Amino acid sequence: MKSFKKELWFNTTNRRELINITSLVEQCLNESGITEGLLLCNAMHITSSIFINDDESGLHNDFEVWLEKLAPEKPYSQYRHNGYEDNADAHLKRTVMGREVVVAVTDGRLDFGPWERIFYGEFDGKRKKRVLVKIIGE
Amino acid sequence: MKSFKKELWFNTTNRRELINITSLVEQCLNESGITEGLLLCNAMHITSSIFINDDESGLHNDFEVWLEKLAPEKPYSQYRHNGYEDNADAHLKRTVMGREVVVAVTDGRLDFGPWERIFYGEFDGKRKKRVLVKIIGE
Amino acid sequence: MKSFKKELWFNTTNRRELINITSLVEQCLNESGITEGLLLCNAMHITSSIFINDDESGLHNDFEVWLEKLAPEKPYSQYRHNGYEDNADAHLKRTVMGREVVVAVTDGRLDFGPWERIFYGEFDGKRKKRVLVKIIGE
Repeated sequence: MKSFKKELWFNTTNRRELINITSLVEQCLNESGITEGLLLCNAMHITSSIFINDDESGLHNDFEVWLEKLAPEKPYSQYRHNGYEDNADAHLKRTVMGREVVVAVTDGRLDFGPWERIFYGEFDGKRKKRVLVKIIGE
Repeated sequence: MKSFKKELWFNTTNRRELINITSLVEQCLNESGITEGLLLCNAMHITSSIFINDDESGLHNDFEVWLEKLAPEKPYSQYRHNGYEDNADAHLKRTVMGREVVVAVTDGRLDFGPWERIFYGEFDGKRKKRVLVKIIGE
Repeated sequence: MKSFKKELWFNTTNRRELINITSLVEQCLNESGITEGLLLCNAMHITSSIFINDDESGLHNDFEVWLEKLAPEKPYSQYRHNGYEDNADAHLKRTVMGREVVVAVTDGRLDFGPWERIFYGEFDGKRKKRVLVKIIGE
């Protein structure tokens, strides 16, 4: 069995951003030399997400509006977590969007449907944060 | 290490349906010959889900009502994604229900609790769509 | 390839509780002797969750309030699942929080970011329920 691990770093300009990281994850797979197995990609921070969806700007706007409705950023005082911090909403938004994806590796490629793309979802940005890619197989 | 991959196809009569696919996934496991490992089952489309819950029709009705409250289908104009399409709500519903499950394989069986069943959740159906089953182990 | 499986049992005092099980999962990893691979931890019941977030009591209170807003326990009559049972809300809450986590194992440790902790989320407790830990690797 082979295994491979790499950390990807992000530092967004805005508090919230969705970034297509599919090609970065494909690079990891190529580096690993693994052709059959499973790939895990997860946020290493608890206020950001890894998820799979469509790379379409209208949809990304819909996600922003929807997450703000389900778990609004403000008023900060509505959350008990917001004593020294103001990011309780980011913990909730990340919960909706998910921490991780597991992707099949077949014939040396991410075994994806036609529109599947991997996104980093940042909900409390403007600072350096990490994503883990771990691949096992052979 | 052994690996196995199979695609399952679905074409639902209705826009939204929940289908118990546990026995189809068990067939994949039997075909694979793998007795110890991990099984990934994921929707290959971004408007459908794979999730684990109870096979109980009352609960399935509750899911329908609840998802329509969290991410209503109509009016279509409330979502920017709905220019040429009308399925933005399906992207959001699938986000709530999840893309994938990872299931332990022990002694050649899905290592499940008493009521765990695998469901295909379709939120934009009436067309052919795929689910991936990938198993690694030995 | 090595594989390891263990079941953890919980019986909470309250209907809803969040329990930090990180050290229990680390014990499983140590027992397994696996140093490179993937670890799956999942609720074996469909009214509880395994998720990763912060071990901060204010945030846990925020989760309770938020989940009660998204999927209220009462009135029980609002859910069709609640014929002989009263736990439909627990099925929905578990859906939001997730069934499982997959964690990378690197150098014999859970490959975590600084604040990642594994939680058992109980939404219909006061009875014995199980969590599965499955590890594959070498």
